[in-house]
Amino acid sequence: MAKDKKMVESITSMDVDFAQWYTDVVKKAELCDYTSVKGCMVIKPAGYAIWENIQHELDRRFKETGVQNVYMPMFIPESLLEKEKDHVEGFAPEVAWVTHGGLDPLQERLCVRPTSETLFCDFYANDIHSYRDLPRVYNQWCSVVRWEKTTRPFLRSREFLWQEGHTAHATAEEAEKRTIQMLNVYADFCEQVLAIPVVKGQKTDKEKFAGAEATYTIESLMHDGKALQSGTSHNFGDGFAKAFGVQFADKDNTLKYVHQTSWGMTTRMIGAIIMVHGDDNGLVLPPRIAPTQVIIIPIQQQKEGILDKAYELRDRLSNFKVKVDDSDKSPGWKFSECEMRGIPLRVEIGPKDMANNQAVLVRRDTHEKTVVSLDNLEEEVSRMLDTIQADMLERARAHREAHTYSAVDWDEFVETINNKPGFVKAMWCGDRACEDKIKEATGATSRCMPFEQEHLSDTCVCCGKPAKKMVYWGRAY
Amino acid sequence: MAKDKKMVESITSMDVDFAQWYTDVVKKAELCDYTSVKGCMVIKPAGYAIWENIQHELDRRFKETGVQNVYMPMFIPESLLEKEKDHVEGFAPEVAWVTHGGLDPLQERLCVRPTSETLFCDFYANDIHSYRDLPRVYNQWCSVVRWEKTTRPFLRSREFLWQEGHTAHATAEEAEKRTIQMLNVYADFCEQVLAIPVVKGQKTDKEKFAGAEATYTIESLMHDGKALQSGTSHNFGDGFAKAFGVQFADKDNTLKYVHQTSWGMTTRMIGAIIMVHGDDNGLVLPPRIAPTQVIIIPIQQQKEGILDKAYELRDRLSNFKVKVDDSDKSPGWKFSECEMRGIPLRVEIGPKDMANNQAVLVRRDTHEKTVVSLDNLEEEVSRMLDTIQADMLERARAHREAHTYSAVDWDEFVETINNKPGFVKAMWCGDRACEDKIKEATGATSRCMPFEQEHLSDTCVCCGKPAKKMVYWGRAY
Repeated sequence: MAKDKKMVESITSMDVDFAQWYTDVVKKAELCDYTSVKGCMVIKPAGYAIWENIQHELDRRFKETGVQNVYMPMFIPESLLEKEKDHVEGFAPEVAWVTHGGLDPLQERLCVRPTSETLFCDFYANDIHSYRDLPRVYNQWCSVVRWEKTTRPFLRSREFLWQEGHTAHATAEEAEKRTIQMLNVYADFCEQVLAIPVVKGQKTDKEKFAGAEATYTIESLMHDGKALQSGTSHNFGDGFAKAFGVQFADKDNTLKYVHQTSWGMTTRMIGAIIMVHGDDNGLVLPPRIAPTQVIIIPIQQQKEGILDKAYELRDRLSNFKVKVDDSDKSPGWKFSECEMRGIPLRVEIGPKDMANNQAVLVRRDTHEKTVVSLDNLEEEVSRMLDTIQADMLERARAHREAHTYSAVDWDEFVETINNKPGFVKAMWCGDRACEDKIKEATGATSRCMPFEQEHLSDTCVCCGKPAKKMVYWGRAY
Repeated sequence: MAKDKKMVESITSMDVDFAQWYTDVVKKAELCDYTSVKGCMVIKPAGYAIWENIQHELDRRFKETGVQNVYMPMFIPESLLEKEKDHVEGFAPEVAWVTHGGLDPLQERLCVRPTSETLFCDFYANDIHSYRDLPRVYNQWCSVVRWEKTTRPFLRSREFLWQEGHTAHATAEEAEKRTIQMLNVYADFCEQVLAIPVVKGQKTDKEKFAGAEATYTIESLMHDGKALQSGTSHNFGDGFAKAFGVQFADKDNTLKYVHQTSWGMTTRMIGAIIMVHGDDNGLVLPPRIAPTQVIIIPIQQQKEGILDKAYELRDRLSNFKVKVDDSDKSPGWKFSECEMRGIPLRVEIGPKDMANNQAVLVRRDTHEKTVVSLDNLEEEVSRMLDTIQADMLERARAHREAHTYSAVDWDEFVETINNKPGFVKAMWCGDRACEDKIKEATGATSRCMPFEQEHLSDTCVCCGKPAKKMVYWGRAY
């Protein structure tokens, strides 16, 4: 019992210390753990099961748009990484280098992929010949390595899991269309499955991906008011194609460069789920991503017929991901445990319930209890899971709305950023210097230039020059 | 058309040059390709789709036995790799070493995992405390790196994809039971899904895994008579547990070492599918692993109603993985292409067929044509796919039986090994010296000591001393 006790006790309140609360949830919900390899995590069964569901949902959506999965090597020869100038400058400082194979030094050192644009380009240069070969819409599921100095579970680790899509198109228009299409897939997935509302927009030049012409992003807001970049989609134009010589013979028989995109989403989304939905009792999982959606907890299970009834209900609920906790722990412990693990719906069944042909349903998100007749248990559970999913999205949206502010001059901007955690909308002249100044003065960065622009004022919140864009600013993970 | 032409022409006959035939199939069925990274492959969509099906089928079987998926880091600190003596001796000569992170040299170099026993042990040492924590039955899907000198697509590459299961148990008996259980999962998967019959047995000490007490293996026979080790399952006893200090408090309140197992299957099974089932027209896929099971090819598709009929049949066959080839290639090209890609069943539908309310079904494995009424197309297709699956297994089994020989003395053994590609069953005294001599004299290795032992003679085929075991010998990939 000692171990169970440790699990459900002593989680830091999120209002007292959000960072510690996050670490406590990660640890006590048994999502991941540290290892002997500095900056690298082990993703434990409860965490990996969430990632498998993320993979399943995303992969299905990708394939519906014509994506094909492939696998590229994990190593990139140094000369290959160096072919695109902006790209190597962006990534070389943070890659891990392999210098020896077995007992021998390598002739050329290899980096462990931080991302695979260079490998896909190298492949496409040999694989694409004619307009008939286009588009290429490839994706891979893999791990990548970036030698971060400071790390946090799921949010920033030296190795992380992700998918990276890499496409090649005959025209600039088609590449741009695919870039936006995949951003929309991400946004839809976040909102419909993870119950996390996102702001869609474009990154500024300062914040865009190394080597991209344009980077689009979905930005979400965590419970503590910090922003999380949740998925990005890049349009490379023909820059990489020129660097790597990826050409095709078009219908008019002339050689043209392809236009390329890439897009990725990572295990940091598990961190987002924790920080958007979690509470002081632990993890709260949206039903559509939960590895276990319904947990049945028998009350006074030693009494005759109770456990059998619990198993009967489990069998009746087999359309859902359902489990019975028939361990020898007390119901109270079981309640705490399944709350810590974030299971969306709890079904309690005891002797009194059996006598009354009823069960008690308890929502994880609101703790609300409902007594339902066993006659229509399946419908009630189904309806309640849908309600939980919808309510979680709405609460997250309301939280974001309540923590999204506007500022029209410098003082108001600094005052808001410093005192009101959240997004701050403000006008921007388009100059890098203003972004730098804002970062230096407040620690905030431009999260995106949202697709849904508003006209807050005529002038840049920083320099007062004519404004070009409304920008979402915020402190970010 | 030039590209299609290249694809379906000029594949080397397997009887002329089996190795070249293999390379041709890999290339022309577009399964994988070479890259700028020496010894590393890109797995292309047609190859990766097979791997996804392998993953899906295996993962489902694993989970039915209680396996949970996790993810461990890809790096192993040198000091961790060195903790188990036999293990490090086995792997250190063939690992890739990371020596720099970003711009700085690392304090301790890290190897890219060649396998993850050391990481799981390190994790279990902190994660397992009590008998209540056991068993741990974890698995991960990932890539591993072994710095091979000579490489071949799928069969031997410096990086390959696999799953590796790692379990910890309270007793030796339970560990042994799990080791055999997973070997049986592999054997069942190979026979039922890949239509590849296997010999189950134990590896000799010479051939067992570095650090294992016992290694069990499934061995299959390729069309050219060479053996392929197709899956292994290792019982480590408590050797790793002692090296890494993985202990638990048992029910009697004493500290005990856990007993561990590991087991793996890799992308080399795609090579096995090619080499067991393929023919001079290309790949032949068993229906249960084929990404496309049925291809519908319209004949005279420019004629009114033909394409619509093809789409209608596709919709009717939506319980299967079905596609229509409605490209502007000629039917002949389409036939060659879908044969090269190994699609199990072809449905031809033309004006004459439509007039007669029929379609022509063509089996990939036998080229047999059957005219069926459209009235019961679904049943006919279903029945035929089942027949193909069963026949492919039976043919592979018959091939293996026909290429499995016995030898009772040295001359017969050498004569057989040298002239009859296949398995040679022979008695063995149990001495390493005889294994070494056989390898040196014939190039053959002991594939396994099969669970189904036979008594061929009283004496070792090599030294004439009393025999202990019957062994399958063969030349292997």
